[in-house]
Amino acid sequence: MSAVRADRLAEAVGERGLDALIVTSPFDVRWLTGFTGTNGACLVTPDDRLLLTDFRYVEQAQGQVASFDVVRAGRDLIGDVAGRLPHGQVGFDDVDVSVRAHGHLAERAATGVELVPAGGLVERLRAIKDAGEQRRIAAAADLATGAFERVLEDGLAGRTERAVALDLEHRMRLAGAEDPSFPSIVAHGDHGALPHAEPRDVEIPAGTLVTVDWGARLDGYCSDCTRTVATGEVGERERSVHELVLRAQRAALAAVAPGAGCAAVDAVARQIIEDAGYGERFGHGLGHGVGLEVHEAPRLAKGADGTLEEGNVVTVEPGVYLPGELGVRIEDLAVVTGAGARVLTSFVKDPIVV
Amino acid sequence: MSAVRADRLAEAVGERGLDALIVTSPFDVRWLTGFTGTNGACLVTPDDRLLLTDFRYVEQAQGQVASFDVVRAGRDLIGDVAGRLPHGQVGFDDVDVSVRAHGHLAERAATGVELVPAGGLVERLRAIKDAGEQRRIAAAADLATGAFERVLEDGLAGRTERAVALDLEHRMRLAGAEDPSFPSIVAHGDHGALPHAEPRDVEIPAGTLVTVDWGARLDGYCSDCTRTVATGEVGERERSVHELVLRAQRAALAAVAPGAGCAAVDAVARQIIEDAGYGERFGHGLGHGVGLEVHEAPRLAKGADGTLEEGNVVTVEPGVYLPGELGVRIEDLAVVTGAGARVLTSFVKDPIVV
Repeated sequence: MSAVRADRLAEAVGERGLDALIVTSPFDVRWLTGFTGTNGACLVTPDDRLLLTDFRYVEQAQGQVASFDVVRAGRDLIGDVAGRLPHGQVGFDDVDVSVRAHGHLAERAATGVELVPAGGLVERLRAIKDAGEQRRIAAAADLATGAFERVLEDGLAGRTERAVALDLEHRMRLAGAEDPSFPSIVAHGDHGALPHAEPRDVEIPAGTLVTVDWGARLDGYCSDCTRTVATGEVGERERSVHELVLRAQRAALAAVAPGAGCAAVDAVARQIIEDAGYGERFGHGLGHGVGLEVHEAPRLAKGADGTLEEGNVVTVEPGVYLPGELGVRIEDLAVVTGAGARVLTSFVKDPIVV
Repeated sequence: MSAVRADRLAEAVGERGLDALIVTSPFDVRWLTGFTGTNGACLVTPDDRLLLTDFRYVEQAQGQVASFDVVRAGRDLIGDVAGRLPHGQVGFDDVDVSVRAHGHLAERAATGVELVPAGGLVERLRAIKDAGEQRRIAAAADLATGAFERVLEDGLAGRTERAVALDLEHRMRLAGAEDPSFPSIVAHGDHGALPHAEPRDVEIPAGTLVTVDWGARLDGYCSDCTRTVATGEVGERERSVHELVLRAQRAALAAVAPGAGCAAVDAVARQIIEDAGYGERFGHGLGHGVGLEVHEAPRLAKGADGTLEEGNVVTVEPGVYLPGELGVRIEDLAVVTGAGARVLTSFVKDPIVV
């Protein structure tokens, strides 16, 4: 990892009026240093950039990390970090650090150290993806698309939701994914009306809609995609809801641009769905950032603050859920560029029969 | 879930001098109530036993939970819990609750509420497994054994470590596991000397030792097992280290009994390995509790407090690691009974060639 990210962080720490920052979330540590071990913490001060880890990972860290000094610490990293804090205002991640760990930190810190909650500071920087990160996310999306295409070659009708999910996840792993980026959703018929449905041991019949929401983690980075496909001829209501969601999804994608409000982009899709009389049936936000975590900043939703920036990678995933009847969700992953949304999801989006 | 667990907890809360307890860890909530959703919190007071969850899970909770009143809360459960706290000393899980969540809780609680750190209170109760839990863990162990037996039918030599791990994990899922209970370890040759080796894209040759550490999660409960097998004829050193570790493992298992010290059982295996001149080469604890979490109380290790109790389920897993050369670890899962250890792992433990 070059020193660019550490420099950006040092700047943000200064702007926040802090004398130092402790970084504990493993995603933040990885982004900042390149270290992939499971026990690491960083300390960023005006003079030092330290990555602390225990004996199990020192060698690995030395191989992975260039812009931070690797410090061999005990397994109790927090205790070791505490002994190294400079006087003044020291930020820590109050979302990641437990009450017990904080007590430990405070107890061991020298007098003159003031611990200040600073959660989200690194995550805000992570929201802007550089070219290498965009390439990694695109590679994860391609891998996930390829796996689903191969699953569909065997059709979906006659297999259980769970069997389809297992097949899809196994194919992603065989293709090199470290893991699915989240537990896959495969939901047909009225079960598609549950946005977070778990795959069941229930056979998918012909002539139904099937919503599949899946992603791969590759080289640490996640993908996320949803398609709603038909297993043969479906009814008029199914077709019209799919058409509506697709129209809303395309309009929202077209609204993605640097400077566009995170709430305003959500509103584009929401308005179209409301105008069609289904406003109450789109009960979640339009999308979220994707990177080392499958849900990270920024958030596209009613009431979300902020605007999109070049380099954000976000999902655009409106849905309409009719309880007891059916559900449709369509989701693409896109990079925010000066020219608008560059879609990373290559899987066909028009209604398909499988 | 019957009210037995809630009664035991209420008793422990009283003994601790608390007026109420907030339970937030999803494993604790599941153990206490039977609720399997991902967003739930309990409040146990002298008068009430509440399970709070958001609208997505209310119906599920009502179906799963008998001994607690299900309360429909906002997604911000902590804020809702805060408004319901009785005056007096209210325990919370300081290991699970973040600094930010605690601040939120304190801000919303009425005056007269004193928040008291009480992490580990439920986990200590969970360490004693009832008959139903023991059956579930045994079923997970059987499933994991069966999957590994089928993997071995194809042999290990000529396949990569990663391919073997993927095959094993896929077979566990196909057999009904919700997931592996942790990322599987498949490590051969000198890589076996790393206790937490990640499977590599490296082919396993004939005539080497292969350490496989794997487990299944079934109905919420975990299994955990390690075997070190040979792919054909191995050297004298490999054979003698395997014999040593097996002897240490059997001796430690024989020492498992209600009232045996957690450090003393560790010492049984450690002494045998030390006497053979490999004391420095057994660099981890002997074992840990297994239940809803794959690592939970009690801990069997040098310096561990406490004694084993009837109903504990623990691993017994000594190892000898010779850097640059080889590693051997052998692990069984066992219930502590009045008659000693009842081993739940049915896979053969004598040296085997695959």
